[in-house]
Amino acid sequence: MAPGTTTAGGQDRVRTRNLSALLRHVHVHGPTTRAELTALTGLNRSTIGALTTELTNAELVCEEPSAARAGAGRPSLLVTPRGNQNYVLAFDIGVDYLFAARVGLGGQVLDRRDLYRPRGEYPLSDVLGHVRRFASELIAGARPGSWCAGGGVAIPALVRHADGLARDAPNLVWQDAPLQAEIADVLAGLGLRAPVHIRNDADLGALAEHLRGAGRGSDFVVYLTGEVGVGAGIINNGRPLNGFGGYSGEIGHTVVNPTGRLCSCGLRGCWETEVGEKAILDAAGRQGARTTVAEVVAAARAGDGRSVAAVRHIGGWLAIGIGNLVSILNPEVVIMGGMFREIFPLVRDQVLSALGTGGLQPPRQDVRFVLPGLGADSTLLGAAELAFAPLLDDPLGVRGPVRGGM
Amino acid sequence: MAPGTTTAGGQDRVRTRNLSALLRHVHVHGPTTRAELTALTGLNRSTIGALTTELTNAELVCEEPSAARAGAGRPSLLVTPRGNQNYVLAFDIGVDYLFAARVGLGGQVLDRRDLYRPRGEYPLSDVLGHVRRFASELIAGARPGSWCAGGGVAIPALVRHADGLARDAPNLVWQDAPLQAEIADVLAGLGLRAPVHIRNDADLGALAEHLRGAGRGSDFVVYLTGEVGVGAGIINNGRPLNGFGGYSGEIGHTVVNPTGRLCSCGLRGCWETEVGEKAILDAAGRQGARTTVAEVVAAARAGDGRSVAAVRHIGGWLAIGIGNLVSILNPEVVIMGGMFREIFPLVRDQVLSALGTGGLQPPRQDVRFVLPGLGADSTLLGAAELAFAPLLDDPLGVRGPVRGGM
Repeated sequence: MAPGTTTAGGQDRVRTRNLSALLRHVHVHGPTTRAELTALTGLNRSTIGALTTELTNAELVCEEPSAARAGAGRPSLLVTPRGNQNYVLAFDIGVDYLFAARVGLGGQVLDRRDLYRPRGEYPLSDVLGHVRRFASELIAGARPGSWCAGGGVAIPALVRHADGLARDAPNLVWQDAPLQAEIADVLAGLGLRAPVHIRNDADLGALAEHLRGAGRGSDFVVYLTGEVGVGAGIINNGRPLNGFGGYSGEIGHTVVNPTGRLCSCGLRGCWETEVGEKAILDAAGRQGARTTVAEVVAAARAGDGRSVAAVRHIGGWLAIGIGNLVSILNPEVVIMGGMFREIFPLVRDQVLSALGTGGLQPPRQDVRFVLPGLGADSTLLGAAELAFAPLLDDPLGVRGPVRGGM
Repeated sequence: MAPGTTTAGGQDRVRTRNLSALLRHVHVHGPTTRAELTALTGLNRSTIGALTTELTNAELVCEEPSAARAGAGRPSLLVTPRGNQNYVLAFDIGVDYLFAARVGLGGQVLDRRDLYRPRGEYPLSDVLGHVRRFASELIAGARPGSWCAGGGVAIPALVRHADGLARDAPNLVWQDAPLQAEIADVLAGLGLRAPVHIRNDADLGALAEHLRGAGRGSDFVVYLTGEVGVGAGIINNGRPLNGFGGYSGEIGHTVVNPTGRLCSCGLRGCWETEVGEKAILDAAGRQGARTTVAEVVAAARAGDGRSVAAVRHIGGWLAIGIGNLVSILNPEVVIMGGMFREIFPLVRDQVLSALGTGGLQPPRQDVRFVLPGLGADSTLLGAAELAFAPLLDDPLGVRGPVRGGM
């Protein structure tokens, strides 16, 4: 009787799962000894040795003696991700900026390009031109013989996960843009035949913050972001809440004020009409001028009456929308990203006070509000993690053996 | 080199996982041949035989020759859950009703008791008295020698998952009621030392509808329910979205009309103040009278002007709240439970039209609206599934060997 016996296919799946767990661990947590990996996984020592040898042969990790000794015997080998040898290209496409980076296995930004420019309606071809130039420069800087696992792209749009179609990017004024395919073409034109994946920016911010930022250690995380629009990325029970098509988290387009202002989406009183960039600039009486949320926040800090009132107005609506989000999702951590990084410190007490004085209290008592651990790079680093995901899921299937053998 | 080798603990986990998968399959899908189980799981024939023999020895299933023949050989044995031998007690505690049932492994209701009564503030002790009486009758009717796997309880309350404390049951007017412990005590008093679990009613409705009802075949399901209050249970990627503490889905207490009516929770303009029972009775001018939503719906169907207008008013607010829910969660299926079973057929066109004429369209185009597949019993059957869960997760660990042996 062998209740645990599996077929050959089952054995392969177990091996892939184990390789995946090891590579993912060193990618997220950095250099780790074989002894630690043995303890962490519950696999036996010889299995760990065989698996890390496979990863070494695929040039994904290197192993060298560690300073720490495992008991009286030889020092346990230290398993380190080879970041310079294996990288991804990450792109964060905003309404008024475009960030690009070469990110190594292990999560380090090896090289980057940042573009800022005025608001405007830039056609897809314009964005693709910048992507081509930046990608070309980033690839040129990579070490000879190094390998690109793929590209990841963040965009403030509804992205259909099945094919990476940017269905609706209201603030980029694109509709049904085949961005994933277009950027894959751009990279192919540069000689890089690598898979490209694209996701909503807030979803990727949540991914990176959960893995490496302020959401680390919690499995119920909402990453809230705002610039022109407002959106949320949701981690539930340790995994992204994508929804059926990939469109979840559009908290900016939930109606909170049905007699309020018309939203770009056609509804009246969406949350983003009350807490988005336009709302705060309007409230501060700065609409029309070339001004920024940062300027309003600075003026409020300096005591300017109208700016203080504007920030307070936003604080009131923030409390309503965040309260709604907490009522539906019961997160442990809400990360205030995008322009909320600047505004939230000014309205924190106001928001907490409002949450404490109405509504069902238990989920409101659970939640903590924090600023992003990755600063302005949550989304860019999330795009990198998206690009790494297939490699981390199936290291040898994606990378293949490079030297040595099976 | 043995990359798939696991420790003894790992072997045990694999065996438990396989036993769990088999028992869960026959519990949900009914009698299944060994040949089908082999094909479904990818395990080999002798492993399936060993596993089903273990489940048979534990009296969880029985095996007998099936009519269908597997090729030219002997007929494959049919594996059937022993529902009369293994049962749970399920309770659905509402504001004006209490349902109790004995439900067999396999999901069949073997016996039940239903209590309806006028709205009122019933103390916990009153509810426990009915639970004791019903449980006693249900246990007395069980077959001698049969085994109770536990109790499951549904309640319109915020339930802390860690310990089953009913934190806030606004419409039962209880606060921090230790309902899980109290009902376990009641059952112990009847000689039944079985674990008891308790959850929010909407969460359990979602669980049952996903497994056996209108959400079957979809992994992104929202079960919406309303009577006095309004709540949602959420299935994301095939699993319940519980949130950090267990309090998710409180869509009834999301603010949609900040200048609207004061809610019992202390906020102004919660969705439940616009679409809950009181809202529809108010809109129909029937507040104060001993009347029901069903009567308003019947009057609207009969053409009564004020009732038609009331239903239409609710339809407008339903569209707003459902639109919000769709924007945040992007479900594939929304199941209209509770009193929405009666109202929704009258406002379906109105809601669909509103969803189609504003907002980000992709998630609105994805979603389907359906009535519960389990009628008024979604929640009760969800409570039964909650009680079965530990057994299904670890059949022999929970049930233990009964005869035969290892």
